[in-house]
Amino acid sequence: MHHFTKSAINDMQHIYKINLINSCSGYKSANLIGTKSLDGTSNVAVFSSITHIGSNPALLGFFLRPTTVIRNTYENIKETGYFTINPIHESILKDAHHTSAKYHKSISEFDVTSLEEEYKNDYDVPFVKDAPIQIGMQYVEEYDIKVNQTILLIGEIKDLFIKDNLIDADGFVNLSNGNVACINGLDGYAIPKLKTRLDYQRPKI
Amino acid sequence: MHHFTKSAINDMQHIYKINLINSCSGYKSANLIGTKSLDGTSNVAVFSSITHIGSNPALLGFFLRPTTVIRNTYENIKETGYFTINPIHESILKDAHHTSAKYHKSISEFDVTSLEEEYKNDYDVPFVKDAPIQIGMQYVEEYDIKVNQTILLIGEIKDLFIKDNLIDADGFVNLSNGNVACINGLDGYAIPKLKTRLDYQRPKI
Repeated sequence: MHHFTKSAINDMQHIYKINLINSCSGYKSANLIGTKSLDGTSNVAVFSSITHIGSNPALLGFFLRPTTVIRNTYENIKETGYFTINPIHESILKDAHHTSAKYHKSISEFDVTSLEEEYKNDYDVPFVKDAPIQIGMQYVEEYDIKVNQTILLIGEIKDLFIKDNLIDADGFVNLSNGNVACINGLDGYAIPKLKTRLDYQRPKI
Repeated sequence: MHHFTKSAINDMQHIYKINLINSCSGYKSANLIGTKSLDGTSNVAVFSSITHIGSNPALLGFFLRPTTVIRNTYENIKETGYFTINPIHESILKDAHHTSAKYHKSISEFDVTSLEEEYKNDYDVPFVKDAPIQIGMQYVEEYDIKVNQTILLIGEIKDLFIKDNLIDADGFVNLSNGNVACINGLDGYAIPKLKTRLDYQRPKI
């Protein structure tokens, strides 16, 4: 095995380092976050850090980079209090990845890709049309992460839309039935196929 | 599409709710966290919430349930300051999943599964032998998540061991070369195969 020490990691060339550290801890969720600014410009951006935080209440969170970089998603959520989470599926991989380009806040990524916005219920924030799962989120709270000036932003699920053929009888959402992607590192994508579900485990002794 | 409202989610039967909410936001990382108590009992447990928090310094974090439930992993990390993260690969899926059973702190999951502990460098905490990636972590800080009394625990990578055939020339770690798993919901596992890597994206306009 190759052994990278902490000091070797610190001294690494930037691109090598971000590739290595972003891919060493396993696969990540692949989602598009949809938002809208108060002046009406919609935004959609790929995020790989969306994480389940709790089911009761139903909470999801994600990490944002420091305020020193452009963060349209964060500013829009703070302005309106709402956002959407839309798992990325196979047929939109390239357009979804393109939303990582740094566009000015006045430009909607919906206008420069073939991704289409969709509005449902009373949300004035865009869902991604044809996504197999669409999650309407309300801002709950945020935490400043001291060690690297990132922000953990937490929201609660207000409305959850799921294509019927993904939902099993016990509530399990079969992501592979929707050809949902996962992310390896910064730029690698896979479309996993469910291999097995394992039983609830109890101690043997 | 099926539409679940917030109030419908709140009123759901418990098992249906945790299956649904744990699987709706996409795939999760599949890792075993290795720890050791001060009195020398080793522990290994499956976690699906390990998330990349930053590369410079190299930080990973994960969420722990409230203090009202058994949390050997948390207690051991607080006692020693160290833990290991080991991505789960295909050949140990069943044993890795079994570590979700609630064993008393005096029992090591290494003794009730075929998982083997391995010690490297100056760590007195166990790595999982034969894991394609082994990450030695040092505790950095934690955050109490007010909304549901979970804890976000953050550590820094001190030593990173990766099988040579997983590392590409630019630092990308090809997880599918190691048959690394991802998790769908609470109990679904897939072994993704890398489909594509996409280029760094710049604005079109």
